Amino acid sequence: MAFSRYVVVLALVAGCLLPSGVQALWPIPTTLETGMTTLKISPAFYFDVQIEGAPPDLCDAVAQSQYYLENDKLGRLVVGRGANDTTALASAMTLSKLTLALASGATVGSISSEAVKPLGTRSEEYALMIPADGSAATLTANTTLGLYRGLTTFNQLFYYYGGVTYTSIAPIAIRDTPAYPFRGLALDTSRNYYPVSDILRTLDAMSWVKINTFHWHITDSQSFPLEVAQYPELAINGAYSPQEVYTASDVQHIVQYAAARGIDVMMEIDTPGHTAIIAATYPEYVACFDARPWADFANEPPAGQLRFALPEVMNFTASLLTNVAKTLPSYYFSTGGDELNTNCYANDYLTQRQLNSTGMTLNGALDTFTQTTHGALIAQGKTPVVWEEMVLNWNITLSNETIVMIWISSADAAAVAGRGFRIIQAPSNYFYLDCGAGEWLGDDPTGNSWCDPFKTWSEAYTFDPLANLTEAQYKLVLGGKHNLVSRYIDLSEQSTGEQLLWSEQSGPQNVDPIVWPRAASSAEIFWSGKQPTGAALNVTEALPRLHDVRYRMVQRGVNAIPLQPHWCALRPDACDLYA
Amino acid sequence: MAFSRYVVVLALVAGCLLPSGVQALWPIPTTLETGMTTLKISPAFYFDVQIEGAPPDLCDAVAQSQYYLENDKLGRLVVGRGANDTTALASAMTLSKLTLALASGATVGSISSEAVKPLGTRSEEYALMIPADGSAATLTANTTLGLYRGLTTFNQLFYYYGGVTYTSIAPIAIRDTPAYPFRGLALDTSRNYYPVSDILRTLDAMSWVKINTFHWHITDSQSFPLEVAQYPELAINGAYSPQEVYTASDVQHIVQYAAARGIDVMMEIDTPGHTAIIAATYPEYVACFDARPWADFANEPPAGQLRFALPEVMNFTASLLTNVAKTLPSYYFSTGGDELNTNCYANDYLTQRQLNSTGMTLNGALDTFTQTTHGALIAQGKTPVVWEEMVLNWNITLSNETIVMIWISSADAAAVAGRGFRIIQAPSNYFYLDCGAGEWLGDDPTGNSWCDPFKTWSEAYTFDPLANLTEAQYKLVLGGKHNLVSRYIDLSEQSTGEQLLWSEQSGPQNVDPIVWPRAASSAEIFWSGKQPTGAALNVTEALPRLHDVRYRMVQRGVNAIPLQPHWCALRPDACDLYA
Repeated sequence: MAFSRYVVVLALVAGCLLPSGVQALWPIPTTLETGMTTLKISPAFYFDVQIEGAPPDLCDAVAQSQYYLENDKLGRLVVGRGANDTTALASAMTLSKLTLALASGATVGSISSEAVKPLGTRSEEYALMIPADGSAATLTANTTLGLYRGLTTFNQLFYYYGGVTYTSIAPIAIRDTPAYPFRGLALDTSRNYYPVSDILRTLDAMSWVKINTFHWHITDSQSFPLEVAQYPELAINGAYSPQEVYTASDVQHIVQYAAARGIDVMMEIDTPGHTAIIAATYPEYVACFDARPWADFANEPPAGQLRFALPEVMNFTASLLTNVAKTLPSYYFSTGGDELNTNCYANDYLTQRQLNSTGMTLNGALDTFTQTTHGALIAQGKTPVVWEEMVLNWNITLSNETIVMIWISSADAAAVAGRGFRIIQAPSNYFYLDCGAGEWLGDDPTGNSWCDPFKTWSEAYTFDPLANLTEAQYKLVLGGKHNLVSRYIDLSEQSTGEQLLWSEQSGPQNVDPIVWPRAASSAEIFWSGKQPTGAALNVTEALPRLHDVRYRMVQRGVNAIPLQPHWCALRPDACDLYA
Repeated sequence: MAFSRYVVVLALVAGCLLPSGVQALWPIPTTLETGMTTLKISPAFYFDVQIEGAPPDLCDAVAQSQYYLENDKLGRLVVGRGANDTTALASAMTLSKLTLALASGATVGSISSEAVKPLGTRSEEYALMIPADGSAATLTANTTLGLYRGLTTFNQLFYYYGGVTYTSIAPIAIRDTPAYPFRGLALDTSRNYYPVSDILRTLDAMSWVKINTFHWHITDSQSFPLEVAQYPELAINGAYSPQEVYTASDVQHIVQYAAARGIDVMMEIDTPGHTAIIAATYPEYVACFDARPWADFANEPPAGQLRFALPEVMNFTASLLTNVAKTLPSYYFSTGGDELNTNCYANDYLTQRQLNSTGMTLNGALDTFTQTTHGALIAQGKTPVVWEEMVLNWNITLSNETIVMIWISSADAAAVAGRGFRIIQAPSNYFYLDCGAGEWLGDDPTGNSWCDPFKTWSEAYTFDPLANLTEAQYKLVLGGKHNLVSRYIDLSEQSTGEQLLWSEQSGPQNVDPIVWPRAASSAEIFWSGKQPTGAALNVTEALPRLHDVRYRMVQRGVNAIPLQPHWCALRPDACDLYA
């Protein structure tokens, strides 16, 4: 895109520190130039959308941005919460307008359609210029999706004190684009159910930190809360209750709500393991259902896995996956594939009879099953996504397009990349939001979380997407422009990372505090990649900004937890270990 | 008290198991006899309070009980959530009345006045009888406080299905009294502030599991959110904001709200450490304020401790404590005393000058300070409460009446009891609700919680109040009737235990999920002491009942977390480690 020319006046005074706590953008933009002039929002402020045929979701996004501008009312995180700005505010210029425009020649599409394009073909970049003299601010982008990202940034610039909404760092020049194209959050809605309203609120919070993929682990062994038109009994028999079902209409609402916020919904129906509850409808399709002791057959209760060797189960699964996938705009669909336990089939009569009659091994049957189910998805135009065991533990032929999710350990990325697959970094040792909450199995009072300890925001933040990988493997992880100025490589080979909440001990009661603000860590790792200065991201620089993210979330009704005592949040670095 | 004679008909059928999931009382009563008859609440059900001059708070409690009975609408935690009860409900008798009466000769006092009597002089016992034939149920007790406990139990007996509220275990005969008289929950409102509404909701939840003490750690080094009439500047300068203050009126409201729910408020103003923020008002009273590196002077930032050697500081502290304590009905007031760091005074001119001029040691000055401040409290009729260091780390003369809180380790109980003090068991290795949430200090991304790992409900539940103590020390810990039938010993020597939430990483956003249902663990340990059968408490028996506690809390608007997947909650023991 061609940015309009803009002269940045930086009011840098030698020896004069920038006021602390004001550059609280998250994720930090690719380039960021700021001054020291205070500029307040005019009571007559408006968004001037200079786009012919602006799509309705862009207009909604503008209205939302206006709402946040008027209602965030976030005081700066400094002692006094902005009281010291009173003098500057008395003489401050006012900003009356933000002009939104697309780059010349850009095609006008909806945010929703741009958000679900294949990875590497989306444009999220934008330029946001806010002069210090009160003349119109401008937001330009190649796409409405880029404008949406820019509006999100715009809202983060403003604070509130004494009835005035203002920024203290004008002029501001931001040119921003994500380092990596896939930035996700995963939620398990099977172990415990989340009402639609909780998912929508989570999508809102995701959008505030520019997360662009909702990895929806919608079903598992414990419940099947998804209404599937062709297989209605799955939810009737498998949901926890008729009220704990995502109806087809709910799913469409969630998908559209997400897309309008720049978020693609990558659904997962985990197979052939993690499917016990299907036995409530099709007992003949599930081996070792609720077998005891469960630990002999599964990583957690109840045991039960699809009899994937049976042709009718293979056909059912292919039909189930494609019938669900075809209702979704995303190009990506996960078939799971983790934690398959072979004990489940060792004494399973139907499976063994089938293997004996065909002369197939269990691995061979799994290969056939996977190729069949993936083939059906690919025929629908979908890209299959799997967990790492499908590559590392089994000898399965996967399409080269398959994306592989690393979860067991970050150390496994190299082995998967070494096999030539694109990967999503979802390592439990950095990104599992549920770790550290203690053992949830009964009768084990001295047990701890299997993935102890708790993964703090800062531990997650130190994750390096490129660790343990060779230069040649980079493009499979994420590729991308590590050097923004000089290198743009093919985005189509990129995928990246996500934080995840498994819900054995979570539900609507704690989804906000267990996810936020921690899930903002990977959002910044994968959007920003590095600081605007080119320096590596670091936790000390990041903490004051993350406090800001958290306080703004609370203002907007998301129960993000305090990371530290409020005393610390007002005093950057005063509560560092070695401060 | 004399229980009216009641013939319990137990419909025990050989080889027939009691229906699972129905005896979900928490804490489990001292004695409990149940049958297998279904009994539903009549649409005309009412509470018949046969007490002349019933106090208003008892009437409020009855109205609250009626509200819960009508609005809990909790389905039984079994597959089908009560659908299998339909047949029994069709022919069930109806219960039309619960009669409340005091034992003959009992003096009628308010719940609020009974709840704040000295430990050992309160009567919380009650008898609840629910016949199976629909004739009136009866609740009797020596005090309105006992009736309140009985109403709490009554509400836990009923479930809801298809428009009907019912129990499946009539006839029911409960005679119940706490094993130990002090059952607490501690909340730190200084590191982060909690609005009054959050504290009230927490008090409600506490009352549901018969916790009877709110240990309010109201101030600390980070903020001073307490309005003190004689020292208004402490909150003006020390609260996080004018909105984050507990006004004198707020405190009275909280204390009254608690008392009406059978809860005594034991406030703590931690001294002489944990007082840095007092420097915002009285800088001359505080040594090493915000000194760096803070870790040289304090266990967490900011550093700063009262110059306790100075007479004016001693007098100020005594005046502050007594001015606060005298506004509170409780007999108990904590002066803190933990984590005093001597480095803070090593180079403090004012302290060293005072010590030199008087020839006192630091220990001697602390002894004088403590005797003065405690003496002032005792003169107000209060019993001082301190943290364990005041006994184990310093050579201080404490009144024999002093109660000592064990926090560093459960292993320290023996040493404190060996010194002859009554103790409150608040050991971090069992009861700290904040452990396991990761390092909160900045710039320490690989750091973990200092008291890792997370303390699960079941680990807390295995706490034995008598571990490591000699028989002779028992009465100092808690005394009490370990054998309910044969032994009643002097309750006046009892104190017991509490779970605690320190708020470095907590606030209104997560107080419910981090506290509940875990804090119910100590509530049962200290109320029940053992199972009605006489067997020791055990986590496998307890888990299904604790699920029930949690689901009922959610029904009542408290965001208690799921302990397991809902699948497990419906199937007792199916998710045990070795199930």
